[in-house]
Amino acid sequence: MGRTSDAGEKILSAAHSLIELRGYAALGVAEICRTAGVPKGSFYYFFASKEALALAVIDQEWAARQHVWARVLNGSGAPLYRLRELFEHAQAAQQAGQLTCGTISGCIFGNLALEMSNQTEVFRDRLQEIFEAQVDMVEAVVVEALTRGEVTVTDTREAARSVVAQLEGQVLFAKLYNNASQLDPLWANCLALLGARPPQREPAGA
Amino acid sequence: MGRTSDAGEKILSAAHSLIELRGYAALGVAEICRTAGVPKGSFYYFFASKEALALAVIDQEWAARQHVWARVLNGSGAPLYRLRELFEHAQAAQQAGQLTCGTISGCIFGNLALEMSNQTEVFRDRLQEIFEAQVDMVEAVVVEALTRGEVTVTDTREAARSVVAQLEGQVLFAKLYNNASQLDPLWANCLALLGARPPQREPAGA
Repeated sequence: MGRTSDAGEKILSAAHSLIELRGYAALGVAEICRTAGVPKGSFYYFFASKEALALAVIDQEWAARQHVWARVLNGSGAPLYRLRELFEHAQAAQQAGQLTCGTISGCIFGNLALEMSNQTEVFRDRLQEIFEAQVDMVEAVVVEALTRGEVTVTDTREAARSVVAQLEGQVLFAKLYNNASQLDPLWANCLALLGARPPQREPAGA
Repeated sequence: MGRTSDAGEKILSAAHSLIELRGYAALGVAEICRTAGVPKGSFYYFFASKEALALAVIDQEWAARQHVWARVLNGSGAPLYRLRELFEHAQAAQQAGQLTCGTISGCIFGNLALEMSNQTEVFRDRLQEIFEAQVDMVEAVVVEALTRGEVTVTDTREAARSVVAQLEGQVLFAKLYNNASQLDPLWANCLALLGARPPQREPAGA
């Protein structure tokens, strides 16, 4: 089982890198297996199809990112500062990707949403679930900030969705310009979208 | 020349529809020619490559959209209401596309920016030019609103870029949910990002 299961992980890892860099349609099973260094014949032992593999990649990426989002957004600091930390993580992740690949790959969920959501219902459904979960997590923080009187929005769901949309839009620019500093305005924009005032300094105990 | 030039336009038109719906990598010259109803052999008489054809599609789409943006944003109404009209146009365009294709295709520039800008410099350059031009046009309106004391932003360039980013992010959601009402919050979000107050009603002469 050792070597076999290792091959499955190699396929998943190669597909993750390739899909992040080049999208879904551009790839074939043969190229993924070649990159993974496993015989093409073994592919279907692990995955029913290229589509099933891409869904496994999406799930793996979301499991990792959800872990970071939960740690940051469920933290003990003031709600607005937790959102700032989330954007700092997003920016650092894009910078790290740029160092590895030479070019910013953007958000794999946003990339696949624009490439595939109108063509394949199973991608549309999975990506909707992921973005709903992101909006859920941001909304919980917005509700907390509202309770503390730190923001003035009335529709917390719509506000959270707009914050995530702004993140995706600025990540698009970061990818287009291959420059993670495009993400600099995220926190200020988030504060504006939530009807918050930029705090002068981080409060003690925040 | 009549029939020949007609074939070139058919190829361009078919490529426009196909790229909008399915992206760039998924398409081959053979499929484009089949959809256009022209012999594959005639393709290279009109276009040097699939890449050259995609650039022609991008230019054609931008020429049309720039015309609309200029008409709306150079209009005589109050600056903030011209921005509202721009978002109404964007929403109507997505709704019209949905009626035609059954599914929202999003923004061809945003789609290609996420699919191709990190892979092909010529796409990156052309799409950067287009988004810079969009930011230019929005910024001119923001500057005008600032002169009139209707917004409070200090960096008009960054504010305009954030407005365009918000548009792209919400279009991503409209495509993902196949629902143009995802674009409903655009104007309110734009006002928030610009530090404007939502006007109670359209002023006389606006």
